[in-house]
Amino acid sequence: MSAMPSERPRPLRFTAFVTNAAGHVIQGTWRRTLARQPDFDDLEHWVRLARTLERGRFDAVFFADAAGHHAHCRRDERGYFEAGFQAPSGDPSVLAGAIAYVTTHLGIALTASILQEHPFNFARCISTLDHASKGRIAWNFVADDLPDPWAEEYVDVTYKLWEGSWEEDALRQDGRSDGPAGDGKVHRINHRGPRYKVEGPHLVSPSPQRTPLLFRAGDSEADRAFAARNAEAVFIRSPSLAAVAHDTADIRSRAASHGRLPGDIKFFQGLHVVTGGTEAEAKRKAAELDERTGDAAKRSLYMGASGRIVGTPEQIADELASWQVAGVDGVNLVNAGSPEPYEEFVDYVAPVLQERGLMQREYAEGTLRHKIFGRGDRLPETHSAARYRGAFVPQRA
Amino acid sequence: MSAMPSERPRPLRFTAFVTNAAGHVIQGTWRRTLARQPDFDDLEHWVRLARTLERGRFDAVFFADAAGHHAHCRRDERGYFEAGFQAPSGDPSVLAGAIAYVTTHLGIALTASILQEHPFNFARCISTLDHASKGRIAWNFVADDLPDPWAEEYVDVTYKLWEGSWEEDALRQDGRSDGPAGDGKVHRINHRGPRYKVEGPHLVSPSPQRTPLLFRAGDSEADRAFAARNAEAVFIRSPSLAAVAHDTADIRSRAASHGRLPGDIKFFQGLHVVTGGTEAEAKRKAAELDERTGDAAKRSLYMGASGRIVGTPEQIADELASWQVAGVDGVNLVNAGSPEPYEEFVDYVAPVLQERGLMQREYAEGTLRHKIFGRGDRLPETHSAARYRGAFVPQRA
Repeated sequence: MSAMPSERPRPLRFTAFVTNAAGHVIQGTWRRTLARQPDFDDLEHWVRLARTLERGRFDAVFFADAAGHHAHCRRDERGYFEAGFQAPSGDPSVLAGAIAYVTTHLGIALTASILQEHPFNFARCISTLDHASKGRIAWNFVADDLPDPWAEEYVDVTYKLWEGSWEEDALRQDGRSDGPAGDGKVHRINHRGPRYKVEGPHLVSPSPQRTPLLFRAGDSEADRAFAARNAEAVFIRSPSLAAVAHDTADIRSRAASHGRLPGDIKFFQGLHVVTGGTEAEAKRKAAELDERTGDAAKRSLYMGASGRIVGTPEQIADELASWQVAGVDGVNLVNAGSPEPYEEFVDYVAPVLQERGLMQREYAEGTLRHKIFGRGDRLPETHSAARYRGAFVPQRA
Repeated sequence: MSAMPSERPRPLRFTAFVTNAAGHVIQGTWRRTLARQPDFDDLEHWVRLARTLERGRFDAVFFADAAGHHAHCRRDERGYFEAGFQAPSGDPSVLAGAIAYVTTHLGIALTASILQEHPFNFARCISTLDHASKGRIAWNFVADDLPDPWAEEYVDVTYKLWEGSWEEDALRQDGRSDGPAGDGKVHRINHRGPRYKVEGPHLVSPSPQRTPLLFRAGDSEADRAFAARNAEAVFIRSPSLAAVAHDTADIRSRAASHGRLPGDIKFFQGLHVVTGGTEAEAKRKAAELDERTGDAAKRSLYMGASGRIVGTPEQIADELASWQVAGVDGVNLVNAGSPEPYEEFVDYVAPVLQERGLMQREYAEGTLRHKIFGRGDRLPETHSAARYRGAFVPQRA
């Protein structure tokens, strides 16, 4: 799938990796006077960021989240709070409604763990958001080290609700018939599994995408196994260009064993970019960032990005072209602050990328899934969720 | 507390009772071609309604919700779907972010059952919204007939997180010290009850109100007992003017036994209003509504409102003045559609009410709680949640 260097490249996909907190992936960034928690508590911050990203033709804003604390810090959260590292942190789904309202094309990817919410209510919230955004919601699935069967059951319940509970024409629109959802076209799913008992029916009529675009990180063995079965977009942190081919081939071959096609999965590499008008300026900014973030910075940086690219917009474009050749479909852009580094990226780097064909100049029409895959609003038939289409329709005599 | 008829009245409080569904309280309203579910799935609908309500100086938009189906229809939800009665229905919290962004003063009251979400995550979502709205969130608590100790434990966990987990000055703002939430001023709550085990700490720094304004319906015995202990605003459906004094006195006397003061609770009567330029026009519209909604309308009407007022704006103002004299502090305005009846109310009824001093002409500054009670952003010391202030601060040597 990789383009030869001499060809005109396809555009890479871009997501902006953020959290609803002043201190995100890179520890210590709150120390910048530009990254104050009250700014992140203010919708204006997110509206400004979302409009910037849409102006730059980013595909989506990607909300990381940890509804609790990372396991290795569980016994001493004080360090998290004192470092301002993902704490305090607000619920990102609250921001999604406002971002959906002020944008037209930008996707909104929400991280949500299966520990956070019952799948019935979670599915309802996501469907409501997918309606409100006209089909621009993605879900980044997190399982918090829970056993794989639990995670699979959770997504299974959501697939049943999203894909199977409502027939396509169940919501009548003529305003004259007996009801808006009549004719017995809304079905219970009657799920009875080891963890969840969910009768249904789903409370929300089919949203533009039904199932949101499915994201998953691909780091651990469990992540990869799950991503191969379920994910349409995989967030990777390959440690080098050389590792990309191995990482993507590994997940694609697992996916093939589930009947999925190579083109069913897009890979987003986490990258951190520091730019400047000259290479020297970029290096100076990177050095300042190092100093500000202290010793822990390099470790925490790797929570979000495995590559760091420091240079002029042209140098950054060269690097991104190399990642594309290595097999990456998109970049999950990690930045050491918000919104300024994204504004710099949009103002200085994006035009160079667009000039070279490495970033889209205009959005495609349609839902987030259609924008990214170009083949319709809904999950493909090769996805396991597709088996629930029509599965709950009673046999008619 | 009631004003004599000869006095200039205090303004009544107004909330607009809506659901994130085409068919709300009054069954059959979806039949109007103006109430199509796709409109309710569109944020534009809610933005238009919110702006209308703010223009009319409503205190809040009040989202009813039922995350599931009403118990008496549980065994046959098909009737709900065929009647379009609260089904399909979307998650109202999704709308709150967008409404918070496009308004400045309007409160946003969200109904949420303790069955929907774990209190740790629920508290996080509400705190995020209270930040995003700058202190305009209310929570209408629903227990779905669960045992009272369960309901009390649920709110207790949220009170501990909201009032006790963070000290007031825990979020440092200077950008120079060791962290934004340091000095050990963020505390675990270590709640261990029969239903919930919640260590904390709360993930969100203190929002403007900390605990959102607490709403509760006051219909059943369990509702009243709970409201007396917890609610700041009680939604009543008194069947007559004469019943108001009894209903409010009953809840206030129960509240007194918990150390609460008469002024700690405001009562909102559910009322349905149909207006027109002349009495005849209003009556004709009411008759049309009757015909459209069919036989079930009178029964379902009583789910939201116990009084129906049909008449000219002046006649409606007379009626509302009578409710105020009877002891009502506010009106939860039920309408048979959205947004048109609210637009009519704002354009034709509100000016008459404002002329008579029965409705505010301008908003007070500050949070929703301060706007309604005029005594600060936070719960009063007489509320049971106040006992958690400072309760989790370790004893310092």
